[in-house]
Amino acid sequence: MLFMARMDVTFPPHLTPEQVADFQAREKEYSGSLQRSGKMAGIWRIVGEYANHSLFDVDSNDELHEILSGFPMYPYMTIRVTPLAKHPNSIS
Amino acid sequence: MLFMARMDVTFPPHLTPEQVADFQAREKEYSGSLQRSGKMAGIWRIVGEYANHSLFDVDSNDELHEILSGFPMYPYMTIRVTPLAKHPNSIS
Amino acid sequence: MLFMARMDVTFPPHLTPEQVADFQAREKEYSGSLQRSGKMAGIWRIVGEYANHSLFDVDSNDELHEILSGFPMYPYMTIRVTPLAKHPNSIS
Amino acid sequence: MLFMARMDVTFPPHLTPEQVADFQAREKEYSGSLQRSGKMAGIWRIVGEYANHSLFDVDSNDELHEILSGFPMYPYMTIRVTPLAKHPNSIS
Amino acid sequence: MLFMARMDVTFPPHLTPEQVADFQAREKEYSGSLQRSGKMAGIWRIVGEYANHSLFDVDSNDELHEILSGFPMYPYMTIRVTPLAKHPNSIS
Amino acid sequence: MLFMARMDVTFPPHLTPEQVADFQAREKEYSGSLQRSGKMAGIWRIVGEYANHSLFDVDSNDELHEILSGFPMYPYMTIRVTPLAKHPNSIS
Amino acid sequence: MLFMARMDVTFPPHLTPEQVADFQAREKEYSGSLQRSGKMAGIWRIVGEYANHSLFDVDSNDELHEILSGFPMYPYMTIRVTPLAKHPNSIS
Amino acid sequence: MLFMARMDVTFPPHLTPEQVADFQAREKEYSGSLQRSGKMAGIWRIVGEYANHSLFDVDSNDELHEILSGFPMYPYMTIRVTPLAKHPNSIS
Amino acid sequence: MLFMARMDVTFPPHLTPEQVADFQAREKEYSGSLQRSGKMAGIWRIVGEYANHSLFDVDSNDELHEILSGFPMYPYMTIRVTPLAKHPNSIS
Amino acid sequence: MLFMARMDVTFPPHLTPEQVADFQAREKEYSGSLQRSGKMAGIWRIVGEYANHSLFDVDSNDELHEILSGFPMYPYMTIRVTPLAKHPNSIS
Repeated sequence: MLFMARMDVTFPPHLTPEQVADFQAREKEYSGSLQRSGKMAGIWRIVGEYANHSLFDVDSNDELHEILSGFPMYPYMTIRVTPLAKHPNSIS
Repeated sequence: MLFMARMDVTFPPHLTPEQVADFQAREKEYSGSLQRSGKMAGIWRIVGEYANHSLFDVDSNDELHEILSGFPMYPYMTIRVTPLAKHPNSIS
Repeated sequence: MLFMARMDVTFPPHLTPEQVADFQAREKEYSGSLQRSGKMAGIWRIVGEYANHSLFDVDSNDELHEILSGFPMYPYMTIRVTPLAKHPNSIS
Repeated sequence: MLFMARMDVTFPPHLTPEQVADFQAREKEYSGSLQRSGKMAGIWRIVGEYANHSLFDVDSNDELHEILSGFPMYPYMTIRVTPLAKHPNSIS
Repeated sequence: MLFMARMDVTFPPHLTPEQVADFQAREKEYSGSLQRSGKMAGIWRIVGEYANHSLFDVDSNDELHEILSGFPMYPYMTIRVTPLAKHPNSIS
Repeated sequence: MLFMARMDVTFPPHLTPEQVADFQAREKEYSGSLQRSGKMAGIWRIVGEYANHSLFDVDSNDELHEILSGFPMYPYMTIRVTPLAKHPNSIS
Repeated sequence: MLFMARMDVTFPPHLTPEQVADFQAREKEYSGSLQRSGKMAGIWRIVGEYANHSLFDVDSNDELHEILSGFPMYPYMTIRVTPLAKHPNSIS
Repeated sequence: MLFMARMDVTFPPHLTPEQVADFQAREKEYSGSLQRSGKMAGIWRIVGEYANHSLFDVDSNDELHEILSGFPMYPYMTIRVTPLAKHPNSIS
Repeated sequence: MLFMARMDVTFPPHLTPEQVADFQAREKEYSGSLQRSGKMAGIWRIVGEYANHSLFDVDSNDELHEILSGFPMYPYMTIRVTPLAKHPNSIS
Repeated sequence: MLFMARMDVTFPPHLTPEQVADFQAREKEYSGSLQRSGKMAGIWRIVGEYANHSLFDVDSNDELHEILSGFPMYPYMTIRVTPLAKHPNSIS
């Protein structure tokens, strides 16, 4: 079951560069793990923004919320989720 | 080079069901052809809306506009295009 | 798996009162059937608007889209869907 | 008399994790009590957001405002309330 | 129980001046009746717009929806309703 | 001459509870005085929000601005003012 | 007493060029009369739009609404009114 | 050449009342000077808001930007500029 | 003096393909003439939309409005104009 | 391949004037270098705002994101990117 998410990141000004780098490293690891498991089917940078579009393939809304709220940078993200269905014109 | 598009379709009320069906048939053929060529890397129905998210893999902005404006239902679509770059956390 | 939908209805001006009444009768039947099957867990009128909030309990995004696009008045509806997860404070 | 509310939570950055945990514990207790009394007829997490949709069953606008403003996290919430009426297609 | 409503009127272009005048006459009568019964506690024109703010004093959401949907011009109105509670600084 | 105002209050996080309470006490006094003089014809809490709708009866725009900017909590308010005229359907 | 208005004009497609020209001629006359009386203190075209900003100097909200609703093209206008007060830095 | 500007002022919370008063005094002087030179043809307070509409009469876009960015409170202002042309109905 | 414009085109449904083609031919001629005179310094299609960004180099607001309102398709365009000044980092 | 960007700058209040000046100096150098290389084809100040419209000529979305995220003031910018295609009426 597929969902498109748009995630925008805004760090509060009091974070140090070291804290930001630590968040980013943990984020990369978490994101890689999700992709290897197939739960995250794609992630793309939106040009010019600290934001991404990403595609999730999960079994339920609960699983998706658990995944999204598990991102290390979740407290600093604004996420909008769009549920997707099979498109009649899709050949895949 | 990837772009995410959101396409919303609004048919004017004067179209007959036959005209709509004809548009949809030609749209399906055009969309299938784009997918087989690899230019359209994915298309998903947005649940509850006459709209889709679709992913395009093209060589240039000009090529993308040519593809989008070639959709049979283009005059009845509102399209918003988001340019995508490689995400540092993507493993693909 | 729960989803909240907001549905707004706008009839085009060329529909006759008879056509509107016919749509409404078929809508009532369809909606009743969905409620009896448990797929629609609730529907409430938004005060002062030709709109509703409704709660769906389905197995997948595809099933939800099939249900929504099956409403007789679907061509005249604007629908926004919000995926819901279990709330940690819910006692149900 | 039913009302749908959407509540979005934004904690100010100066709160410590202990303060946040304390707010969440008191919120859970308050919310549970409202549900047991039947005043809160449902609460659902919005996937990917620190937000909920919740359904209230109260006797008056004044009672609803008293309930909402009594949430421990009320100062950190943005709440939008929608009054609901019986829907003609509802079978409940 | 008080509610503030904002009502915007948009007539479709196919109505004749006579039809509009008839709607307005029936609207005036309906509105006057609501005011005499105390259900509508006030109505004010928004300067420069075919719109009003009005204040309703009703027993329930259902009663309010029944009143609003009973306006002769209801099909041509966009209505937004805001539930009101007693303000702690009000001396009335 | 009537005006509808919507006032939203947002206190900055650095205010102490004592400062907030002091603002609220002075606000209550100022608001009461305005009501007794007839300049403020009504004030209602918007359910679930730290906001109000209020109705002013003043002689001029200048007087209204003087009144509004005199609220003790004015620096923390967002105010939107709507000029009102007599409604042709009003019986008052 | 001053008010700033923004007026946007949208003619329905069924008007003939003659009807439009007639509206514009009557509008010019009405507008000129308002300016000569001093009620309209200024009117400026917004570059690239069928819209204007205009400044009114009237005695009351009721007078302003009477003036605005008297424009021949009023049924085709969207008007937003902003009440103005004397600015402390104004030297006029 | 005329331009309408809307300026909204938001002071950051760390400014002391003395700093604010100093900004306002310098602003008043700068604004007065612009009016005496004819570059600023009018300035009006928007009722209930820390904002103004003002009218500029300048020789070029560059001159206007130089004037606007020279306001002492410029760093705390949000400014939106609308270019104006002569209106065909203006008699001035 | 430079201005950026965004122009969106929406043809009413009653235009015939021949009428549309005629408008487009006249538009192309008008646009070419503006470019040859240097008044229009650039025009670019927005990918996926019947819209453009264009750059104008004119002597005054009045001249710009005259140019824009002279476009054959002006009645079917929504235009938003942004005045531009020299950027301190520009090397041109 | 052309892209229009709009960049809005918002410095956090804790930056000293020296830090701001340092950012601006580095920004000017970076921007100049991009213009000399032809990657940035134009940059214009939006009148009255700490913002610009700029035109980029790049080989790919990835290159554009690399350029944009390399701006010294990137963390303090909100950037919106619009992909451009050749306009059929362009003579260049």
